Amino acid sequence: MKNLIEPVEKLISEFSRLPSVGRKTAVRFAYYVVNMNKEDAHSFAKSIIEAKEKVHFCGICGNWTDQEICTTCQKGNQKLVCVVAEPKDILALEKVKDFSGTYHVLHGLLSPMDGVGPDDIRIKELLDRISKYDVQEVIMATSPTVEGEATALYIAKLLKPLNVKVTRIAQGVSLGSDLEYVDEVTLSRAIEDRKEL
Amino acid sequence: MKNLIEPVEKLISEFSRLPSVGRKTAVRFAYYVVNMNKEDAHSFAKSIIEAKEKVHFCGICGNWTDQEICTTCQKGNQKLVCVVAEPKDILALEKVKDFSGTYHVLHGLLSPMDGVGPDDIRIKELLDRISKYDVQEVIMATSPTVEGEATALYIAKLLKPLNVKVTRIAQGVSLGSDLEYVDEVTLSRAIEDRKEL
Repeated sequence: MKNLIEPVEKLISEFSRLPSVGRKTAVRFAYYVVNMNKEDAHSFAKSIIEAKEKVHFCGICGNWTDQEICTTCQKGNQKLVCVVAEPKDILALEKVKDFSGTYHVLHGLLSPMDGVGPDDIRIKELLDRISKYDVQEVIMATSPTVEGEATALYIAKLLKPLNVKVTRIAQGVSLGSDLEYVDEVTLSRAIEDRKEL
Repeated sequence: MKNLIEPVEKLISEFSRLPSVGRKTAVRFAYYVVNMNKEDAHSFAKSIIEAKEKVHFCGICGNWTDQEICTTCQKGNQKLVCVVAEPKDILALEKVKDFSGTYHVLHGLLSPMDGVGPDDIRIKELLDRISKYDVQEVIMATSPTVEGEATALYIAKLLKPLNVKVTRIAQGVSLGSDLEYVDEVTLSRAIEDRKEL
């Protein structure tokens, strides 16, 4: 495109780096910004810098926070810890309102193929928490993928000698799903873990 | 969500304002920004401000530019003017490499229902151009919608007494489209405007 002006081209390339944003979407975003009023554009730019500068990892759980210790770690039950792979998993879990415990973010999952070993994710920090806060139960809430399962099993094995109860989130058919389209592994687990009514 | 930190929440709401970005996508964008390194976040923020501050309308055609007169107006043929509704339409047209003329952005289309009349879009500026640059042909390249058609007809009628040739982009079946799924109005126009081979 011969006529694209340099500041707009620059902004398009910045937007293109966002996850799942292609050039066409980036062009629409850039034109939206150019059409914004000046205060809105400045407030947008400022919020990017503030999010980057004020937000860091919680000293206990590893989730993003703008305080030293995140609010969940300040208020939640430190004896019940739910282990997840990434901060965004916590967003999903927080919709479940009756969980009163705290979280632990691994910042990754074991993946020997990609060279991610136990020292590359926050397993040591989890072990430290268990002795420091006298943790009673660890819920492994990693995704039911190969890496998620492997990480859950690895950590469970590691915690066994420490006399901590380690549980795994249940697997089964999701609410509203059509049995016809549920994969066989999920269906087999759903039958295996059946509950009496 | 109880645990979302204020600067991240602010950034999510900023991203949510972008066209076709819902909350889930905005959350992914915000986490992407938080995960960026500091220089990248600053460069992103800067490019938003620069695009907003350096970019304004071209004094002739009304397209966005960071110069006084956009490059197309500097180099292109001012006697051949292609009229479009919005700057982003020019992006699409510029992919057509053999057009040597210039553009004119109306910044809207006539729409009595929404209270947009001839004085609300850049029709007066078009008339000024026609006398000033001795324009020979005006190509109406507004979209083939009700408003696009009405605007094209209105401007054509206005320009007739000025002895300017006014043309309309052709309508017909698109390249690669399946006749079975082409709507009947398009098909009827395609037959009406048939060309001898």
